[in-house]
Parts: sequence; structure tokens; C-alpha cells
Amino acid sequence: MKIKNYLIRVVASFYFLIAMVPFDVTAQAPANTPPATRTVFVSPEIGSNNSVTFRLRAPEAKEVSLSVDSVPVAGGSEPRKLKKDTGGVWSITLGPLAPELYSYTFVVDGVRTIDPSNPVVKRDGRRNESMLLVNGIASDLYGVKNVPHGTLSKVWYPSPAIGLTRRVYVYTPPGYETSGKKYPVFYLLHGSGGDEDAWTTLGRAPYIMDNLIAEGKAKPMIVVMTNGNAFQSAAPGDDPVENGTPPADRSSYAGKFETSLVKDVVPYIEKNYRTLTDKNNRAIAGLSMGGGHTITITNNNPDKFGYVAVFSMGARNPDSTFDKRLQAVKANGVRLYWIACGVDDRLMDTYKALQKSLDKNGVPYTSYESSGGHTWANWRIYLAKLAPLLFK
Amino acid sequence: MKIKNYLIRVVASFYFLIAMVPFDVTAQAPANTPPATRTVFVSPEIGSNNSVTFRLRAPEAKEVSLSVDSVPVAGGSEPRKLKKDTGGVWSITLGPLAPELYSYTFVVDGVRTIDPSNPVVKRDGRRNESMLLVNGIASDLYGVKNVPHGTLSKVWYPSPAIGLTRRVYVYTPPGYETSGKKYPVFYLLHGSGGDEDAWTTLGRAPYIMDNLIAEGKAKPMIVVMTNGNAFQSAAPGDDPVENGTPPADRSSYAGKFETSLVKDVVPYIEKNYRTLTDKNNRAIAGLSMGGGHTITITNNNPDKFGYVAVFSMGARNPDSTFDKRLQAVKANGVRLYWIACGVDDRLMDTYKALQKSLDKNGVPYTSYESSGGHTWANWRIYLAKLAPLLFK
Repeated sequence: MKIKNYLIRVVASFYFLIAMVPFDVTAQAPANTPPATRTVFVSPEIGSNNSVTFRLRAPEAKEVSLSVDSVPVAGGSEPRKLKKDTGGVWSITLGPLAPELYSYTFVVDGVRTIDPSNPVVKRDGRRNESMLLVNGIASDLYGVKNVPHGTLSKVWYPSPAIGLTRRVYVYTPPGYETSGKKYPVFYLLHGSGGDEDAWTTLGRAPYIMDNLIAEGKAKPMIVVMTNGNAFQSAAPGDDPVENGTPPADRSSYAGKFETSLVKDVVPYIEKNYRTLTDKNNRAIAGLSMGGGHTITITNNNPDKFGYVAVFSMGARNPDSTFDKRLQAVKANGVRLYWIACGVDDRLMDTYKALQKSLDKNGVPYTSYESSGGHTWANWRIYLAKLAPLLFK
Repeated sequence: MKIKNYLIRVVASFYFLIAMVPFDVTAQAPANTPPATRTVFVSPEIGSNNSVTFRLRAPEAKEVSLSVDSVPVAGGSEPRKLKKDTGGVWSITLGPLAPELYSYTFVVDGVRTIDPSNPVVKRDGRRNESMLLVNGIASDLYGVKNVPHGTLSKVWYPSPAIGLTRRVYVYTPPGYETSGKKYPVFYLLHGSGGDEDAWTTLGRAPYIMDNLIAEGKAKPMIVVMTNGNAFQSAAPGDDPVENGTPPADRSSYAGKFETSLVKDVVPYIEKNYRTLTDKNNRAIAGLSMGGGHTITITNNNPDKFGYVAVFSMGARNPDSTFDKRLQAVKANGVRLYWIACGVDDRLMDTYKALQKSLDKNGVPYTSYESSGGHTWANWRIYLAKLAPLLFK
């Protein structure tokens, strides 16, 4: 049957040429690509000892460097210069690299660019970066493993407190669709520059939860990942306001997200999902700006969340009003107040001030000080440490 | 309350500096960016008449050009050279551009790069490209409008026919969660180089459906967007197999996706969603390779789908076996067999051959020949033309 043969041929060449293996594929070059001869190469290439070679074809460039986020090797995230071979391909080998999910970019004669040989690109705020997963024990929680996976839904909900229809991501654990059970809910907030994409793209929260639940380390729970920028309906490209609300108009939204989380998001989730709706089946955590949101939300609503966590954020010059609110948090009872910060974090002083306030006001808490700074590597680790403590 | 003031200050500066407006923001530059003075500029900037200015800072570059997908202005997608100003910012103004969703890249001294000033980047196969929406009547269906939005879920399902747990995207229409109703199901397949991401990122299918349903043009329906690469569990970065199945092993997967759609996907959807499960409440469509899948699936299962559509694909040298199968399609009855192709499409000959086969075998069909070629602009238009014809 010729059509079948034809389709098999088409499919077979597609299978060979495209998809997953990071080849620089001539077949995908558009009509306007110069017809230069191209050697197939791989970037990034992970060696057997977890050394990683990054490559970029740039025959005309004078200088190519590489920036890698949170590389735990000498030099930190300082840019590293690549060397050019006679074919115009620049390369550098780093490592062995510790198992981790890295983001990286090249700088070609002053212009920052993703790796064109690597299809996996994630947005961090306004910047797009290439991603590299080096597997191993330390990264085991971030990998997509052969375990039952939860469902990640992009849901739009009405937010009268803000005056917008807004988007939220909802992770429901494996089995949710058919179990008939009710689940506790964990509200997980991003930092400044981020949006509702961040905890799934950079934070790998769905896979972290899948893996923890599969190992019996975390209870099955619903995870709700909001957009903390009250002036936005959704992430760039998914917001009805083209190019967003003008900066001049944004200050009028200050404080509204924190209100909307309690007035709009929690009721929406509890109405539309099978949830356990008492305080001790609600947790909230946030990183950086989202840690600030978490403090504000729980201080303003001390009866709503039984589990509170603040990542890489704290309090600056907490005053008597702050004390009073923490005392309300204490009086209402909190099963877990968990705070974490990297020792190199620029917000370490605010973390210490929060610690002092919690001590002063007798709020019991657990603290975790990691190495490193204000990085997604740390936030993924904090999530993986926190989730097993929730709802137990 | 100082903490509140502090948070407001942090939040206010964040609001001002980051997020939606496409500024080149110095505050976001990493530690290793040269401390050069930077002027804030916007790229892409849409003028009042829909002319668009693209800008890139590249003081060291010798040549910067721009490639825009499917620009309906003189020159097509040929690269266009930008001009450098005294500050090292290169720019070019195109247009007025027709309302459309464009993808574009810069080429800087031979290196292809996304626009670092534009956060909206989508992957087309292995290539990442910057996206630009020029609003207007013709693009009205692709925009994120203030209408009720459906939910888009990323779901993992067992696929015994392939031997993998695989990911599928499921769009449920506005109101699904609370209506209690059953819905018809539309299976929508991507092309070669794509995966389960493609119809939502490049095809804007959820927004097209939201907008058509809001206007009463399309019936509320569930849309199921599969991954047609049988060797993959999911898109790059979400596949448990690091770097994918080796190309040498992929040929053993040929034909399995087509089987799995009927044996695995349809039963999973009909078990886990409130669906209408008769033939006339099932539709299937695909573009390019997915059009080939659609032909194979419906020829092999003439009793399963009441609505069939093939975008930018057809048949090559259809033989008597092909005829026989189309006769089975006819005998089983099909409410709509809809085929579409762009006049400049390199697969136009296969489209014409399919047309001829449908004629020869007496399968009634509707054909639509558009301008343009093998482009996402066309596939979005075809979806918007097809969806109103389904389940009526």
C-alpha cells in the first residue's frame, strides 16, 4: 500500500531527524538559512562523568561566553569563554557538574542568546534561558520519572477583589480523577518577575510532588500556583491586556493579590475541587516576593492556614504592629511555620529579622539554612523538604 | 507598619521594573553583564498603524537580520537587514503588518537568536522563536479576550498500545466543571516536529475555541491534543527518557500512535471525562503528519469518527487498497470530510491526489484552499473554519 509506505517513510525520516536528540538539524533550517555545510553536533552534551560540553556555531563571532545559573564549580555563575574550532563551532566543557537542573545562556559578541541546539527553554521573568538537567541522586526529585503523574490544569477564575478574570495552575495528585476522595490544598506562590508559570517551568513542582507522593514521602494534595502580580490576568502572551497594564497604573494594585488569595482563590478552589476545607488542611508557601505575600496573608488571616512557609524572604525592621500580628498567628495556632534561606542570599538579613520576630513573639518555627543564594535550585530543594512536612 | 511599607516598596519597584512591558531592563541584567549605560527601548514596538519596529542591542555585531514567519508583505519570510544607530541598537520597521500572530528570530553575525526584549517565546519543533501578536479583525480569534475561558489540562494516561505512560492536553470548555453535561470530543493532531504542546502554544487552540464558543459559533466541546510521536512520552523536557529514544530505535514505533489513539486515548477520555460516546460526537483532525495520522486512523477505523479533517496533507499515489478503505469510510457514513491546503504548500500535490481519491470513491467532502503555505497561520485559520462545522 503506497500511501502507507509513504507515510512510514515520512514518519521514519521525521523520527530520525527531529524531536528529542539535540542535533543541529539542517532539515529544520528555514528557506533563508545560508546553504553552508553544517556538521551535526550536540549541545549540551553530557559526558559519562557528568562533564557537560556546550557548543555553538558562530563562525563570524569574535567572542562567545557561557553563563550558567548556580553552577557549583569554581567561578560560580561568572561567564566563561568558549574556544572556536576551525569549523566555526565554539565549545567549552564544564564539570563534572553536580546533579541539578541548570539554566544557561550564551553571550555572542555582547548579545545574550539561548542555545539554538537545545529545544528546552524556560522563561525566568522576562528572560528566556536554555535548560539542562544533569541527573543523579541530588536531582532525583526534579526528573520526570516512571511514576504516576498528577494532572496540571490551567484554570481561569473570577477575581472580584482584583476586578479581573485570572489564571491559576492547579496540580491534582495521581488518582484524583477517580478516587472520590477529598484532599488538602497547598497554595504555592512565586517571586518577583515570575507568574503562574514559574513553579511548574522552573520550580518543577508537579514532578517534585509526583516523585514525593510516589515514594510515600508526601501526602497526596492539591497544589495551587497563583499569579501574584495583581495587575496581570496571566503570564505574558496569555494576558488579554496586550503588553500588560501600563507601569503607571500598577501601583493601584498593591496589596490586592494578598486579599484576592483569601477572598477569591481559596473559595474558588474549595468550590470546584474535592478539598478538605479546615485550616489544618490548608498550607501556604512563597519564595521571595511570594514569601512576603505569605507573611502578609497569614498575618492578616491568622485563622486560615495551618502550615506556613517562607522561602528566601523575611521582614525588614519589623515593628510593634508586626509583633501584634505574629501574636495573632501564635494565638490561632499554626502547625508548622517553616522558614528557609541560602547563606549567600541578599535577603539573609530579612530572614534573620523574621527569625528574631518569631522568637520574640513565641511563634514556634523550623528554620533551614542552605548553601547558595536566591536561586531556583534552592527553591526546588525547599519545596522538596517542606512538602513531606505538610498535613501530617 | 514598616514591614508593610517595605513590602509595598519592593512590590512597587517590581511593578515598575519588570513584568509585561517589553523594556530592556537594566535591573534584570545579571551580575556578569557589562556595566554599559543602557537606554530603555521596546521590541517589538507596534505603531498606531500596525507598523512594527524590531530592535536589538548588539554594538559589536557586523550584521543583524530579521526573519519573520509568514509576513504578508513584500519579500515574504526573506531575512531583512537591520540598521545600527550610534548607541549600538539595531532596528527595522516593517509594515503595516496584517493582524496575525507572527513568530520571528534575529540572526546576529550568523547566529540565530530570539529577541531578548520580548518574553513571549514559543517552541516550533526544536526551534524557539519570539512571538508577536498584531491585533485586528483577522487575528481576533487568536487573542486572549475577556470571554469565559475553558480549562487546559496536562494529563498523563496509560498507553498499552505503545508501552508508555504518555501526556495529552485536554481542553474542557467554559462551564464544564459545574454543568454536569456530557460533551462531544474533538481529537486534534499536530505535525512532524511538533508534540502535545504545539496546538496550544503555536496553534492557540484553547483561545480559538474560547472565542468561537463565546460567539455561539462553535458548540462547547472537549478538545484532546495528543503527542503523535509514538517514541516519546511527552514534549522535550517532560519526557522521562533523557534526550529521547535513540533515533535508531524509533522505527519500531511506526504506526503505533495511530493504533494507540483509538485503543488508548479515546477510551481514556471517555472514561475520565463526561463525554458523548457515539461516532457522531467524535471528530478528528490533523495537520501535515497529523493529517496523515488522521487518514490512517479513519481508514483503519471507519466506524469511529463522524467528522474527519485533513490540513495541509493528502495522499501520495493512492492505490486500490486506499480506495477500498475510503469506500469503507463512505459505507460507514461520515458527516463531514473536510480538507484544506494552502496554494503555496509543498504538499499541494498530495492534497490534490486525496481530493481525486475522495471523488473517485464517492466520499462527499468539503475542500478549502487558502493562500499561503505550510504555516501555523493557515492551521489556526483552518481550525477556526472547521470548529463551527463540528457536531451540528
